[in-house]
Amino acid sequence: MRRIFAVTLLVLLLSVSTAFAADPLPAWNDTPTKKAIVAFVEAVTREDSPDFVPVAERIATFDNDGTLWSEQPMYFPEVFLLDRFRAIAPRHPGWRQAPTLKAVLDGDSEKFPPEIHILVHAGYTTEEFAHSVKDWAAVARHPQTGRLYTEMVFQPMLELIGYLRDNGFKVYIVSGGWTDFMRPWTEKIYGIPPEQVCGSSVKTKLALRDGRPVIVYLPEVELIAEGPGKAVAISKYIGRRPIAAFGNSDGDLEMLQWTKAGSGLRFALLVRHTDAEREWAYDRSSARGRLDKALDEAEAKGWTVVDMKKDWKVVYPFEKE
Amino acid sequence: MRRIFAVTLLVLLLSVSTAFAADPLPAWNDTPTKKAIVAFVEAVTREDSPDFVPVAERIATFDNDGTLWSEQPMYFPEVFLLDRFRAIAPRHPGWRQAPTLKAVLDGDSEKFPPEIHILVHAGYTTEEFAHSVKDWAAVARHPQTGRLYTEMVFQPMLELIGYLRDNGFKVYIVSGGWTDFMRPWTEKIYGIPPEQVCGSSVKTKLALRDGRPVIVYLPEVELIAEGPGKAVAISKYIGRRPIAAFGNSDGDLEMLQWTKAGSGLRFALLVRHTDAEREWAYDRSSARGRLDKALDEAEAKGWTVVDMKKDWKVVYPFEKE
Repeated sequence: MRRIFAVTLLVLLLSVSTAFAADPLPAWNDTPTKKAIVAFVEAVTREDSPDFVPVAERIATFDNDGTLWSEQPMYFPEVFLLDRFRAIAPRHPGWRQAPTLKAVLDGDSEKFPPEIHILVHAGYTTEEFAHSVKDWAAVARHPQTGRLYTEMVFQPMLELIGYLRDNGFKVYIVSGGWTDFMRPWTEKIYGIPPEQVCGSSVKTKLALRDGRPVIVYLPEVELIAEGPGKAVAISKYIGRRPIAAFGNSDGDLEMLQWTKAGSGLRFALLVRHTDAEREWAYDRSSARGRLDKALDEAEAKGWTVVDMKKDWKVVYPFEKE
Repeated sequence: MRRIFAVTLLVLLLSVSTAFAADPLPAWNDTPTKKAIVAFVEAVTREDSPDFVPVAERIATFDNDGTLWSEQPMYFPEVFLLDRFRAIAPRHPGWRQAPTLKAVLDGDSEKFPPEIHILVHAGYTTEEFAHSVKDWAAVARHPQTGRLYTEMVFQPMLELIGYLRDNGFKVYIVSGGWTDFMRPWTEKIYGIPPEQVCGSSVKTKLALRDGRPVIVYLPEVELIAEGPGKAVAISKYIGRRPIAAFGNSDGDLEMLQWTKAGSGLRFALLVRHTDAEREWAYDRSSARGRLDKALDEAEAKGWTVVDMKKDWKVVYPFEKE
């Protein structure tokens, strides 16, 4: 009896405090974009809503590069891969025999040889690789802002992830930029645990090192989570079509189309980089994060498009300092 | 102030009720096996324990066939695959040209041609496949017990999954018997959502069907989650080494070894089928679910081995009816 009283009282007090709760998206201006996000979340979470979705089916997927953090002037995962490539090159003297690789090591080339993805993985254990990512993330700084790369995440998107999670969503990252580059730090930075991160991957095998079983990378790409590969990754890792998907480029188009093609109310959002002062401004002709076909589709289908300059009060968390 | 009072009162009342909580494992006899399970869970969850593990790292992985449900006289996923193969054969007249497949269709062969795994997937969408699994699970019955296959799950293991979940564990199934055969029903039967099921898989691609984007199976195996493949699947899908792993056969040996090779307290358990009356009795020489090398390893390393006959009060939930 006293327990029932306590529970009733608690529920009552929590309801009252919720009614006067602070804005869950304070870094967002009060524009139609913010209203569209809130309207969607309320529509799928209010039990009396015709669009109500049970908690178990509230899956939201986010691209990472350009959606949750910046991607200029070079994709951050590629910065890591290059740094790692140079750091371990002395252990692999054969690399200097290949002219394209030698040019990278000598700083004579601005090109990113795609085989570097494989070279920095192959033969290393997942644990060694994770350590190298953590070590890099703790010290590597962006050439223009001087900030740690992991500081260059978008404050409004951090709030959006939290808002979705508080409303019963399970939030995933689906990254073209290699699953195992993301997993070591997403929990700390985004509050997203490693098992909710999927994306591009390299094949692995079980092996013994000093008599201890470990997972070792093989020199073979398994999946590239860009374009249609993002839908393939989601189907494989999560096994459900998301009800909300968030991206910023043509590489996210199929993920958003596939999400919207599910039954019931679905949400698709693109982050458009329109703020040359606080971040970068680029879209249809950019080499990185090109937003062209997906922008046409968003306009044709009425998807939500974030105008960074107009919709965001702050871009990076450090602006609030 | 009143809110603090309510919370305090609630915490107090919940603590009192927990102290007198009912046995979380009532289908388990009070043997050393049960004591080992409870001792492990208490050691990693009590905050004052030297073996305490934070909630985020409490990952437990279960094999399915022979560990969570029966696997005699034929692996249940193979029963489904054969039923599905026969059901869709009229749509694939070419199948009758292959003597081994014709023999299966005419009921002239007891052998299971391995290519059937691919044939029943290739060209179908993940949604069609999931429907076929659900339809099958709703009606297919075991030839000896006359029960639905999904009724032939082990009551003590259902309790164990619930006990782990109540103690903050994230419970995964890692099944050799095809991820997409499991995902449509694991939430209903085990309370484990599709995104916590991984295992053997077939490659897929994104395709358009009637203008709608869907995921379609390709005629190629992606991963076989048996033996070392179980550790590979866990590393890929979860990205963490489990702290507890549960299996029943030599196909689970590497998963258990890899789990135990992590730092800190780890738990490895094998279900040994010793009850010819209530279930089946088999181990070292069985064609299905052979338990030989893993049993030697369990004895040498002191892993926990369930003796079904001695340790379990009931085997199936329907025994309680």
